[in-house]
Amino acid sequence: MEGVENYNGRMNLNFRSDNESPAADAIVAAVVEANSGSAWAYADDTLSQQLDTAFSEVFETETRVLPVSTGTVANSVALAAVTPPWGAVYCQQHAHIYNDEAGAPEFFGNGLRLVTVAGENGRIDATALEHAMKANTGHGVHSYAASAISLTQSTECGTVYTPKQVAALCDMARDRGMATHMDGARFGNAVARLGCSPADTTWRAGIEMLSFGASKNGCMAAEALLLFGRHELRDHAERLRKRSGHLLSKMRYVSAQLLAYLEEDRWLDMAANANRQAATFAAAVESHESAELEFPVEANEVFMRWTAEGFDHLERHGVEFLKWPGRNDLARFVFSHCTRDDQTAALCKALNAR
Amino acid sequence: MEGVENYNGRMNLNFRSDNESPAADAIVAAVVEANSGSAWAYADDTLSQQLDTAFSEVFETETRVLPVSTGTVANSVALAAVTPPWGAVYCQQHAHIYNDEAGAPEFFGNGLRLVTVAGENGRIDATALEHAMKANTGHGVHSYAASAISLTQSTECGTVYTPKQVAALCDMARDRGMATHMDGARFGNAVARLGCSPADTTWRAGIEMLSFGASKNGCMAAEALLLFGRHELRDHAERLRKRSGHLLSKMRYVSAQLLAYLEEDRWLDMAANANRQAATFAAAVESHESAELEFPVEANEVFMRWTAEGFDHLERHGVEFLKWPGRNDLARFVFSHCTRDDQTAALCKALNAR
Amino acid sequence: MEGVENYNGRMNLNFRSDNESPAADAIVAAVVEANSGSAWAYADDTLSQQLDTAFSEVFETETRVLPVSTGTVANSVALAAVTPPWGAVYCQQHAHIYNDEAGAPEFFGNGLRLVTVAGENGRIDATALEHAMKANTGHGVHSYAASAISLTQSTECGTVYTPKQVAALCDMARDRGMATHMDGARFGNAVARLGCSPADTTWRAGIEMLSFGASKNGCMAAEALLLFGRHELRDHAERLRKRSGHLLSKMRYVSAQLLAYLEEDRWLDMAANANRQAATFAAAVESHESAELEFPVEANEVFMRWTAEGFDHLERHGVEFLKWPGRNDLARFVFSHCTRDDQTAALCKALNAR
Amino acid sequence: MEGVENYNGRMNLNFRSDNESPAADAIVAAVVEANSGSAWAYADDTLSQQLDTAFSEVFETETRVLPVSTGTVANSVALAAVTPPWGAVYCQQHAHIYNDEAGAPEFFGNGLRLVTVAGENGRIDATALEHAMKANTGHGVHSYAASAISLTQSTECGTVYTPKQVAALCDMARDRGMATHMDGARFGNAVARLGCSPADTTWRAGIEMLSFGASKNGCMAAEALLLFGRHELRDHAERLRKRSGHLLSKMRYVSAQLLAYLEEDRWLDMAANANRQAATFAAAVESHESAELEFPVEANEVFMRWTAEGFDHLERHGVEFLKWPGRNDLARFVFSHCTRDDQTAALCKALNAR
Repeated sequence: MEGVENYNGRMNLNFRSDNESPAADAIVAAVVEANSGSAWAYADDTLSQQLDTAFSEVFETETRVLPVSTGTVANSVALAAVTPPWGAVYCQQHAHIYNDEAGAPEFFGNGLRLVTVAGENGRIDATALEHAMKANTGHGVHSYAASAISLTQSTECGTVYTPKQVAALCDMARDRGMATHMDGARFGNAVARLGCSPADTTWRAGIEMLSFGASKNGCMAAEALLLFGRHELRDHAERLRKRSGHLLSKMRYVSAQLLAYLEEDRWLDMAANANRQAATFAAAVESHESAELEFPVEANEVFMRWTAEGFDHLERHGVEFLKWPGRNDLARFVFSHCTRDDQTAALCKALNAR
Repeated sequence: MEGVENYNGRMNLNFRSDNESPAADAIVAAVVEANSGSAWAYADDTLSQQLDTAFSEVFETETRVLPVSTGTVANSVALAAVTPPWGAVYCQQHAHIYNDEAGAPEFFGNGLRLVTVAGENGRIDATALEHAMKANTGHGVHSYAASAISLTQSTECGTVYTPKQVAALCDMARDRGMATHMDGARFGNAVARLGCSPADTTWRAGIEMLSFGASKNGCMAAEALLLFGRHELRDHAERLRKRSGHLLSKMRYVSAQLLAYLEEDRWLDMAANANRQAATFAAAVESHESAELEFPVEANEVFMRWTAEGFDHLERHGVEFLKWPGRNDLARFVFSHCTRDDQTAALCKALNAR
Repeated sequence: MEGVENYNGRMNLNFRSDNESPAADAIVAAVVEANSGSAWAYADDTLSQQLDTAFSEVFETETRVLPVSTGTVANSVALAAVTPPWGAVYCQQHAHIYNDEAGAPEFFGNGLRLVTVAGENGRIDATALEHAMKANTGHGVHSYAASAISLTQSTECGTVYTPKQVAALCDMARDRGMATHMDGARFGNAVARLGCSPADTTWRAGIEMLSFGASKNGCMAAEALLLFGRHELRDHAERLRKRSGHLLSKMRYVSAQLLAYLEEDRWLDMAANANRQAATFAAAVESHESAELEFPVEANEVFMRWTAEGFDHLERHGVEFLKWPGRNDLARFVFSHCTRDDQTAALCKALNAR
Repeated sequence: MEGVENYNGRMNLNFRSDNESPAADAIVAAVVEANSGSAWAYADDTLSQQLDTAFSEVFETETRVLPVSTGTVANSVALAAVTPPWGAVYCQQHAHIYNDEAGAPEFFGNGLRLVTVAGENGRIDATALEHAMKANTGHGVHSYAASAISLTQSTECGTVYTPKQVAALCDMARDRGMATHMDGARFGNAVARLGCSPADTTWRAGIEMLSFGASKNGCMAAEALLLFGRHELRDHAERLRKRSGHLLSKMRYVSAQLLAYLEEDRWLDMAANANRQAATFAAAVESHESAELEFPVEANEVFMRWTAEGFDHLERHGVEFLKWPGRNDLARFVFSHCTRDDQTAALCKALNAR
C-alpha cells in the first residue's frame, strides 16, 4: 500500500498499521537536503530553531515545540510535566498510553497512575469521567490526586472528537485545576476530517499540550510535543527529554521532517488521502451482507466485525491486517498517506468475493 | 569540516564535535533505499532482523543487538539491566554517563548510583577502582552494592584502552560478581587506532555489554546496544527500550544505517580518517611554541592548552571549537569521518599564525 | 471502645476503625520490658533475632520475617520484590493497595501497575481474574507483564476467603509463573473466623508472601513481612526496607510487640473478641426493620446500609463510625480487640432506638 | 551504658552507638500514658495535633511538623520535596545521606543526585562547595541542576557548626536559589554544645528544613521533619510520607515521645549528659601516651586513633565500640543520654591500663 508492489510481486495489501508505511518522498527529500554541512547539536541547529515559528503559525498562537522521535516520549514527557508521582491521569479505556506504551507514562512520571474511563467509540464519556474523578476525592493523602486528563484525537477507535466535545471535557478538568493533554498520534487525520483549524480542536478548546504525531502519516520518525500557553513547562519538558535519552545530537533530521510535513499543508493532504481510502472501504463494509463496522469510521481506521472464515478468506487473498487481540470476530484495517485507490479497490474486491 | 563550505562562503572550520557532522553519503543512501514498501513495525522488519547476524560476524561471537537512536539510551538500558536500584556503577570521573546525560542512568536504573573513579587521561585507574569498591563494602544494606563498571572507549579524553587494560579492569569487576559495560560512543575510533579485532577490546577482554556508537561517525541517529554472552538480558533490555519510548515504530531507518555502517568496514575507514586528521593537528600542536596537548591524542579528539588570546585568535579566523567549561586555558577540537585534509591544514595554519 | 470512657465522660463508642484502638496491655508491657540495657541496632538485637523461629512455629514452616511499622511498607516491599517495573499486580477492586496507599506499591515498584479485578463481597472473582490476565497478554513488550496477584484476608468488605478459595486463585497465578501475596492487615480476624491453621490459608494454599498485620489488632505499630519458601527474596526485601527508611535502628520495640502478640495465641484471642462483637452487631442489623447488611459479616467489620436520617440518629447518640465516601446510604463499623460487650450493646441499643 | 549491667553481669560498656541505648524512662512513660482510649488515626489524634505548637515555641517561629519513625525518611522527604529528579543535592563527603541510607534520597527523589563535598572535621568547606557548584553549571539540560544543600549538625565526625558557619553556607546556597536542609540526627547534642537557641543554628542561619532527631537521644523511634518558613512544602511532604508507608495509623505513640522529649528541656539535658561523658573520655585520650583524637570532640562522639593492639586490649576488657570500616587504626565511641559516670570511668580506666 506504499506505492510499490511487495516482495512476492503481488500488489502490496498491507493494512496492518499506518506505521508500517514508508515515508513520503517529500519528507525523505527534506532529510537528504538537511544532510549538508555541519549543524549545531542538540536541537540548536537552524532547522530545529524554526519549529516554534512554524508551529505557532499553523496553530495561530505562540507555541513551544520539542521535537522527538516517538509518540510515547511526547505523551510521557507531557504527562510527567504536569503530574506529581502521586497524581492520577484520566484517559479512555482504549487509550494507547494505558494499553500500548509499556508503562512509559508511569516511568516518566515516577509512578503516577493512569485511571481509565469508559465511553463509546473511543471517546471519554463525560458522566463516567465525572464519576471517576469524584471516586478519587475525599480521601486526602491516602489516594492519588486528580491531576490531568488525556484525550486521543483521532481516537483509538478511529473516531474524532468535535471541538465542542473536547471543550466539554477540558472544562471539567480545568474546573478542578487539572491539566489537559491530547495524544495526537493521528492528529492530522482528525483535522482533515473536521475541516477546522488545528487551533479549534486544541488550545481553543482548552488543550494545553499536544503530542503532535507525524511518523504514522508520512514521516520516518518525527513527532513533536507542543505547549500552548503553558510555556513555563518547557524547561521541565526539556529536562525529561534529555534525561530519557531523547535529545538527539543530530536533531536536524527530525526537525527537517517536521518542517517539510507542515509545509504547504502537506500533512493535511496526506491525512485526507488516508481518510478517503478508509471511507471507501467503510462503504464497502456497510453494503456488505455479513461484515459490519464496529465503530463509525471518521478517520483512517476501519474496525470490521466479520466471521473467522471471512478473515481467513482475506488472508488467503494476500490482505494483511490486525486481528484484534482476544476477539476472533474483529479486525482492524488502517489506511495511510500513500494507500492507492487500486489497493483499496483490491481490498474491497476481496471482501466482496465472499 | 563536512565536505562543503559553510554559510558564509568560507571554508567550514567547525571542530566543535563530531556529532555536528553530517551523515556519510552511503548512510543516507541506505536510508533512502530502505524507504520502499511497507515494513513490519517495532523492529520486526527485515532490516532490523539482520542485525544480530551482521554484528555477530563483525564481533566473531553470537551477539544480540538492540538498535536505538542515542548513546544515552544504550548506556542507560545496559546499566539498568544489570544494576538494582540499590546498586552502584563505577565509572571514570570524566565519564559521559556521569557528566553529560542528565542522570539518565539514574532514571532508567530507578535511582542507582554512579560512583566516579579517578585515573589519568580518561582511563579508570585500577588502584583507585580497587579503593572505591572496598570503601563501599562491609556496610551491608546501609550502602549501595557494587554492581557494574562502565569503561569508555575511546575515552572522554581522546585516549584508548588497550585490550590488556580493559581485561585488567574487567577481571577486577568479575571477581566481585559485577557486570561490565563499555560506552563506545566513539568505539570505531578506538578500534581503528588499535588495529585489533572489535572482539579483542570487548568480550574477549571481559566486556559483556557494548553501547556501539555510530551517530558521531557518519550516521544520522543510529546506535546499538550489543549483548555478548549475557543474552538473558535481552528481554529486560527490550522492556526498558519500549518503556522509555525508544522502540521506534519505523525502526527500519535506524537498522538501515547500522547495516550500511558495518558494510565493507565503512565504519573503520571513516573512523580512521577522523583519527588521521586529529593526529595531523596534534603534531602541529606538539611542534608549536606555546600550545600544548592536555592528553595524548589516540583517537579523534585533541585537547589543547593555550592562552585565552590564542583561542580568540583562532575564533577570529573562523575556527569553531569547544572551550572547556571552567577552564579558560583549555579547548577541545574534534575531527570527524568527513573532515578533509584542507580543513585540517587550514586549522594548523591558523594555529601557526600565532 | 478501648476499655475506658472517652473525653466527655460518656461511654466511648468509636467504631471508626480498629486502628484507632489503643494497644493491649500485654503488648505495652512487652515494649516496656524491652527497654532495658543496650541492644544492637538495625534488627540485630536478640528480640528481632527470635522472629524467624517464632513465626516458623506458628506457620509450621521455615519462615523469614521482616519486622516493619506499617502494612503499607510490608505490602509494597513484597510486591516490589517480585514485580519488575513493567509488571502488573492483580488485586480486588476494593483493595487497600489500590485505594488507600497513595501509590506506595507503584513507588516501591518503580512504576509497576496495579490492575483491579471485580468480585463479590471483596473477593477476587476467578473468572474476572482469568479475563483480566488474558486481556494483558499477546502484546509483548507493549504491555505490562502479568507478575503477581495480591489477595486481602480478611477482605476490605469484612469477608474471609476459605483456604480452598485462596488455593484456586493461587493456582491460576502460579500456572502463569506469577507470584502470590496476601495482604493480612486483619489476618488474625480471618484465622480466628476460619478456625484453621495459619498455614492453611497461606503457604499451604499457595501464598508465598504475607503482610502480617498486628497494629490493628492490639499492637502499637508492628507488622511483619513473612516469606514462605521464597527465602531468596529476603535480601531484596531487606534492601527495600532500608532504602525506604523502614529499618528502625531500635527495632527491638517492634519485635517485642510481635513476639508478645504471638505468645499464647494472644493474637487469635484478641481477633476473636473483635469478630464476636461484630457478629453481635450484625445480628442486630439483620433483625432491624430498615437497616441492612451490605456484605456478609465474617470478621470484625460491619457494612450497614441505612437511611441518612438513621446515621444522623446514631451520631446524635455519640456513635462514631465511617460514612462511606460517595455513598450516603452506607457506613462501616469496625470492632477491635478491646471492644467490650457493653459498648456493642450500647451500639445495638442506639440502632434499635429507631 | 544504659543504666543497667549487661547480660554477663559485668558493667555494660557498649559505646558502639547512641542508637543502641534504651529510651529514657520519661519517654516510655509518655508512650504508656498515650495508650488510653481511642484516638483518631493517621496523625489526626490530639497529641499529634500539638506538635506544631510545641515545636514553634521551641524554635521561636511558626513551624510545621511531620512526625516520622526514622531519620532516613525525614531526610529523604525533605530533600525530595525541594529537588527535582534532575536536581543535585550537595553534602559533606561523610554525610549519612550519602553513605548510610542505601540511596533513600535517590529513591524518594526519583533519581536525584547527591554530590559530595570535601571539608575538614565533617564540615562542608565553603571553597570546595563553591567549586563543586560551579563545576555543575554551564551545561544546561545535560547536567544536574544545583538544587539543595544538606548540612549535618552535629556532624558525622562529632563536631559542630557554629551558627555563623551555617549561615555562610546557607547564604551561598540561597544566592543560587537553592534550598537548605539540616540533618539533625544528633541535633540536641549540637544545641547543647553551642548553648544557643535552636533557632540560631537553623532558620535564623538560613536553614529551611530540619530533620529533628530524637531516637538516638532517649526516644524509641521518633523523629520529626520541621519546616521553617516554607510551609507550602507541607502538602508535598505529607504525600511522600504517606506514599512511602511512613504515615503510621497510630501516630500518637510517636507524637507522645516527641512532646515528652521537648518538655522541660529534657532533650537538652539528655544531650548534655552524652556530651559531658564524651568530653571526659576525650580528655583521657588527649592525655594518653599513644592514643589520639582524630577529630575535635564537640558533641557525643569520640573518634580515636590507636594501635590494633590497643583496640584488642579494650575489647578484652569488655568494651564495645565501632572499628572504622577500612581503617584498623581508628575507632568510634559514642556516648548517650544514659551513659553513667562510672561507665565512662571504666572506659577511661581500660584505656589507661595500656
